[in-house]
Amino acid sequence: MAETNGNYNVIGTRPVRHDGVDKVTGRAIYGVDAHMPGMLWGQVLRSPHAHARILSIDTSRAEALEGVHAVMTAADLPDPGAGVAEANESGLQSKRYKSASLMARDKVLFEGHPIAAVAATNRHVAEEALELIDVEYELLPVVLDVREAMQPDAPLLLDDLHMDTGGELADEPSNIASRTIHEEGDIEAGFAAADRVFEGEYTMSMVHQGYIEPHNALAYWSADGHLRVECSSQGQFGIRSELADHLQWPISKINVFPSEIGGGFGGKTTIYLEPLAAVLSRKSGRPVKLTMSRSDILRATGPAPGGYAWVKIGITNEGRITAAQAMFAFEAGGYPGSAVGAACLCAFGPYKLTDFRIDGYDVVVNMPKSHAYRAPGAPQGEFAVDSLVDEICEEMGFDRLEFRAMNASEEGDLRANGTRYHCIGNHEVIEAARTSDHWRSAIGSAPGRQRGRGIASGFWMNGGGMSTAVAQLNADGTVTLREGSVDIGGTRTSVAMQAAETLGIPVEDVDPIVPDTDSIAFTGVTGGSRVTFATGWAAIEAARDLKQQMIDGLADHWDVASESIAADEDGTFRQNGETVSFKEAAGILDGDDLRLVGSATVVPEGSGNTFAIHIADVDVDLETGKVDVVRYTAIQDAGTAIYPPYVEGQMEGGVAQGIGWALTEEYVYDDEGHMRNVSLLDYRMPTTLDVPMIESIIVEVPNPGHPYGARGVGEVPIVPPLAAITNAIADATGARMRDLPASPPKVQAAIAALDSD
Amino acid sequence: MAETNGNYNVIGTRPVRHDGVDKVTGRAIYGVDAHMPGMLWGQVLRSPHAHARILSIDTSRAEALEGVHAVMTAADLPDPGAGVAEANESGLQSKRYKSASLMARDKVLFEGHPIAAVAATNRHVAEEALELIDVEYELLPVVLDVREAMQPDAPLLLDDLHMDTGGELADEPSNIASRTIHEEGDIEAGFAAADRVFEGEYTMSMVHQGYIEPHNALAYWSADGHLRVECSSQGQFGIRSELADHLQWPISKINVFPSEIGGGFGGKTTIYLEPLAAVLSRKSGRPVKLTMSRSDILRATGPAPGGYAWVKIGITNEGRITAAQAMFAFEAGGYPGSAVGAACLCAFGPYKLTDFRIDGYDVVVNMPKSHAYRAPGAPQGEFAVDSLVDEICEEMGFDRLEFRAMNASEEGDLRANGTRYHCIGNHEVIEAARTSDHWRSAIGSAPGRQRGRGIASGFWMNGGGMSTAVAQLNADGTVTLREGSVDIGGTRTSVAMQAAETLGIPVEDVDPIVPDTDSIAFTGVTGGSRVTFATGWAAIEAARDLKQQMIDGLADHWDVASESIAADEDGTFRQNGETVSFKEAAGILDGDDLRLVGSATVVPEGSGNTFAIHIADVDVDLETGKVDVVRYTAIQDAGTAIYPPYVEGQMEGGVAQGIGWALTEEYVYDDEGHMRNVSLLDYRMPTTLDVPMIESIIVEVPNPGHPYGARGVGEVPIVPPLAAITNAIADATGARMRDLPASPPKVQAAIAALDSD
Repeated sequence: MAETNGNYNVIGTRPVRHDGVDKVTGRAIYGVDAHMPGMLWGQVLRSPHAHARILSIDTSRAEALEGVHAVMTAADLPDPGAGVAEANESGLQSKRYKSASLMARDKVLFEGHPIAAVAATNRHVAEEALELIDVEYELLPVVLDVREAMQPDAPLLLDDLHMDTGGELADEPSNIASRTIHEEGDIEAGFAAADRVFEGEYTMSMVHQGYIEPHNALAYWSADGHLRVECSSQGQFGIRSELADHLQWPISKINVFPSEIGGGFGGKTTIYLEPLAAVLSRKSGRPVKLTMSRSDILRATGPAPGGYAWVKIGITNEGRITAAQAMFAFEAGGYPGSAVGAACLCAFGPYKLTDFRIDGYDVVVNMPKSHAYRAPGAPQGEFAVDSLVDEICEEMGFDRLEFRAMNASEEGDLRANGTRYHCIGNHEVIEAARTSDHWRSAIGSAPGRQRGRGIASGFWMNGGGMSTAVAQLNADGTVTLREGSVDIGGTRTSVAMQAAETLGIPVEDVDPIVPDTDSIAFTGVTGGSRVTFATGWAAIEAARDLKQQMIDGLADHWDVASESIAADEDGTFRQNGETVSFKEAAGILDGDDLRLVGSATVVPEGSGNTFAIHIADVDVDLETGKVDVVRYTAIQDAGTAIYPPYVEGQMEGGVAQGIGWALTEEYVYDDEGHMRNVSLLDYRMPTTLDVPMIESIIVEVPNPGHPYGARGVGEVPIVPPLAAITNAIADATGARMRDLPASPPKVQAAIAALDSD
Repeated sequence: MAETNGNYNVIGTRPVRHDGVDKVTGRAIYGVDAHMPGMLWGQVLRSPHAHARILSIDTSRAEALEGVHAVMTAADLPDPGAGVAEANESGLQSKRYKSASLMARDKVLFEGHPIAAVAATNRHVAEEALELIDVEYELLPVVLDVREAMQPDAPLLLDDLHMDTGGELADEPSNIASRTIHEEGDIEAGFAAADRVFEGEYTMSMVHQGYIEPHNALAYWSADGHLRVECSSQGQFGIRSELADHLQWPISKINVFPSEIGGGFGGKTTIYLEPLAAVLSRKSGRPVKLTMSRSDILRATGPAPGGYAWVKIGITNEGRITAAQAMFAFEAGGYPGSAVGAACLCAFGPYKLTDFRIDGYDVVVNMPKSHAYRAPGAPQGEFAVDSLVDEICEEMGFDRLEFRAMNASEEGDLRANGTRYHCIGNHEVIEAARTSDHWRSAIGSAPGRQRGRGIASGFWMNGGGMSTAVAQLNADGTVTLREGSVDIGGTRTSVAMQAAETLGIPVEDVDPIVPDTDSIAFTGVTGGSRVTFATGWAAIEAARDLKQQMIDGLADHWDVASESIAADEDGTFRQNGETVSFKEAAGILDGDDLRLVGSATVVPEGSGNTFAIHIADVDVDLETGKVDVVRYTAIQDAGTAIYPPYVEGQMEGGVAQGIGWALTEEYVYDDEGHMRNVSLLDYRMPTTLDVPMIESIIVEVPNPGHPYGARGVGEVPIVPPLAAITNAIADATGARMRDLPASPPKVQAAIAALDSD
């Protein structure tokens, strides 16, 4: 374990999170709780077909229904083609596609695609009105499989979609939106230098983030053109920007209020209901609220893409990787834009590469438009790579951990994007795995079941981006800290801790607030594992600014030069033998009529990548194919663990979701593209009964690119579980599960196939 | 008319106010519109007696009622005596009195005094619960008249109240809370130098501000100790401070959200329902909302004090004032603290004084605790002085305007508080009155009625104090302007105009916002005619800060020194022949990832006093005593009129209210202290039928103490109408109305008394 940057007073401690009591007592206010006087309820009419042309929409009967105040269709949304002066063509196309996904213009491309929306005095009237909207469809052939969709003769979803390869468009339209290629070194020479070459094919299902709280939006478009939107999202500023784009309304006229959020995992970084609520409000003159049902969420919001992966690795007899190649083709859903790009960048992240080529295809299919889901793309990519690595180790007799140590990427090595790694904790994580109790323990056994152990690696890039924090000194010596970042996983506290550390005060004296877009400067989305890093940095800078203002104020008070005042780590200010505590200083400054506010907007570089290794023990019921995860250890480099219990929380949460990806979660479609499992009874997310007690081992290799050494921690823990668990199944049974989820029928069939060999 | 400070692009124009459309279309959200999920409704049990000892309160039957979630009494409010370490004694006493006024501890001191409060599932259950609260009272003798209350043998309201004269406490308790004395020169020599000495006695009724929106409060005390309060008030920070005092809770744990406010006029600068809603929320664990009925408002919120005035003036035969003396005794209501101090400071404001003495008495009586009402104290004081001045002019044959010109206070003259006037527009206002169409027009006549004309002067001090503004640059070149001041009379716009002027952009490109207390630094109350002056100044400084940041950002962008960039008045930035507009600059800076926020907290001196003269023509029905105001002109120094239509609006509003004070509004009590006119049917505020078209003449003598010359304008227009109208009645009929209101029975009686002479 690496040394930390220093001794901290606040960082690394385990305070109660500021919003904790409210949340466990059920008193926090979520988006679905929002209410305004005179509020109407909206409902969305959704397509029952996965692929069809819209011949006509007649809303007249709905409009005539008593209690209906407004009905809208895509005709009420501005055409993104209009009024955009110098949009580059691909940017414009992507706006047009997003607009069409919000409400279908001429075609529906997935079941649940919005067609129209209604605002009425209550939900029941709104629902009744939906049944009075008459839509004529011309059904079109449905494309669900990514490889079929790539065929030249596949039915086209979008007539104007031409494959984009680094800016070059294909002549003919196809369902392939783009191809990205990452290539370094000499791939052919690399494979030629190998003693053995392995390859494998892998497939995986679309999976949903499964946040508890449904999407929601309450909009009020006032008569003077101010649009107020209250909703739970992963970033009020992103919602504002998208609304501005899709309503063609100035951002200065839009104010987005972030409510508490009941889970996002990447899926709440975009708009669905917000523009519909806004348009219905504009049309009705009343506040309008919309929420989704669970089936709306599963059918029509953005899950992680499933798809296809092919991986090829060259190995020397000593176990060194000489060359690596991969192809990924991901289900973008009805419109372009899957996470395949990040899959390409992350799949080989844990491994030292010199000669490689990675191709990524983004492919449209008649499924919901995919969206970000925790380390987008990385779990799928790593599943393929680490499954093959496991096969290699098994086939060639390498210790799985020593193989990783030998081939570990390290500082200065080439990344898939062509840059070089900075200081990373890959080796330290491997070492922590090696010395872990789990790795050193015997696997054990369970009567009547087959037990096995698997390990897998994980890599995530982590984000930076723009963040704002404002630190306002109160007369009582507490500090109100406005943070631009929506708090999903405890970042009110992890950010406040950094301000508290900088100011030398207890974190309980910092009161973190997440304001609306009018009340703080721009801050990027809560995603990319960026908040503790970037918004934390903004909080440090705001605190430094405040501290300097306090010093200047005390200098005026004492009639001395600011330079003669020292600020100690415990918040004490010293000048020529005189000392005042932070609270005393606040009182003095307040008495001098100073109301001090420090602030900072930062765009930090150097977010620092992060690595993980997970160890999974599973029991397989040979008869039914049911797999139970019986022991699980997650090891991860957190940089400096600012707020350790929530680092652990992220690790445990990532594992729980990864178990779902690995074993039970999938989108089940019939041939016409109707999703068959649209409730949480049938879409099988892991419950507490499916998840063991998870052991978390935090490795701290401080990130030199952050004042306190923070790295993002929230995403990488979902990367290793898929391969760790399927590798464990292979260890237990000899059956290698190359198609996710490894559900009981598939496991049963794979075991049966082994027996029949 | 004085020259203005310069040519402005924005200041002095008449834009549509930013909140105008929302307000005229009924879409603005007021405090009474507030709602939270799970919200309970509260009701307050109020004393039916004006003076009584509370022997017992039994809430058990109310608590047992189905649907009741919490019941509170004064026992649930912290005792302000406890936990206050070094409170000075008078400060502590005033906190204790305020606390007891919120909810009676041992005595009730006015009808409507809160005794207990209930939170229940709806209003009806809460009302029902009130009837189940058993209170035993011991009735005490009621004191309603201020002069009776001052007698040594008067029944005492407060056993521990000793008259405070400049910090010295009387030995014996009494109903006189304080005596203030302002004395300069040699009063006896002054009167000795007079050729004639006049004196008069005057009385006036308590009058209510009559804001349309009732008091309201929605509070949510979350489990982790954050108290969120939403209410309409004249200042979210004042509400926060008072809540902190009376709940003994840290201000950093209290966040007050200001809603739109339906009128305040000084009456919404304090707490009534807020702490009750908070305590009921803490006890019930649910959000709790309370609103007042109109009778609650009239019986138990703070009106302007009525009382008694005596004035004595010495005059030379040429018409020069040689000495002036006055005594004011005002009804504080059940607890100390009337506006008598300001009456003393303002009554002689328009007149040049050298030798004077003014005594003010603050007296408790069994009526609601009085509170601020537009130019608090000044209308009462000026009524007395300008009534006597009118008698002097009539008796000695002086032209009323020339008398004022001869005796006008001017720069360098002594003020009642012992300081000297700065640049003031007193002479300019008199000159504008002299040349006004109204003054130069014949009075005319109306058949069967007696017409007369009166004039009166007005003076108000105007306030400064602390204000904060934050100017945030948007990518589209608009500016979001956060203002700490609640907007009652159009100050979103008058403040935004000053930011726009400073930045060189249209005011429509400035989007003013009034945030909650967590989202901006401290700003004083909206009152004292201070917002356009002080918050406007903060906006100017915030805009200057933003402009400098833009210059620095452009300097970075162009790689030149900041000093080489010039900012033109129209918002253009120039550097070495290159120019970019403000909007272009915003785009460039946004592209450079700069999110610029200028901010300022200011405590400006030099708010600048203001003067007015009003001219009123009235018709008196000799038979019924009914008085109609048939023509009215208000002339006022506004300094630079930042936002002229709202200067006029303030002038017109002040006159309308003044007509009510003069003619119809009064508190009618029976002998037991029960108010008999507790609805707006019986408490007669002027309607549109009672108010003529008001002519407003704005005089602009720029205030050298403000960057754009602004003076406060909102309060002085309520000062002259009382005397202007009663002087007009005297002119019409010969009957001098020395007791307000000059209601028909009183006018009729006064005319009858003349006839019988």
